Amino acid sequence: MKAHVHVRLKPGILDPQGKAVQQALHHLGFRAVESVRIGKLIELEVAAETREEAEALVQQACQKLLANPVIETYDIEWVDAS
Amino acid sequence: MKAHVHVRLKPGILDPQGKAVQQALHHLGFRAVESVRIGKLIELEVAAETREEAEALVQQACQKLLANPVIETYDIEWVDAS
Repeated sequence: MKAHVHVRLKPGILDPQGKAVQQALHHLGFRAVESVRIGKLIELEVAAETREEAEALVQQACQKLLANPVIETYDIEWVDAS
Repeated sequence: MKAHVHVRLKPGILDPQGKAVQQALHHLGFRAVESVRIGKLIELEVAAETREEAEALVQQACQKLLANPVIETYDIEWVDAS
């Protein structure tokens, strides 16, 4: 089963990488870009019998390693129904 | 207008960051995770009169700065219809 995990900084947490990209865009002439925030897109392939089992595993992986719950939020999207 | 840009490594391009995360997951006991690939999730806020104008701007920004077209692909998703 294939999951896409989106990890984002929580609102209010400073994003220096996003700020740097925004400034670079402004220097390139893209002045209409008002804000940039950068997160991670993690694509996981999981071997599991059921969707529930896979979901539990990916949730745990997010909490233990993939996201930092102090400053980040995540959501999990399943790509195929197999 | 708000766009989410997903930037992924093209298939076949080695992803050492993904490999490192996969090994870390295995060490934590998540042996069912068969593959991990890591991309970027870029959230942009764009000031534009029309969706077409915003779309053209974000496409250009992707090609010039946000993605490396040699090794990465990207797709743009619009979050609200305003």
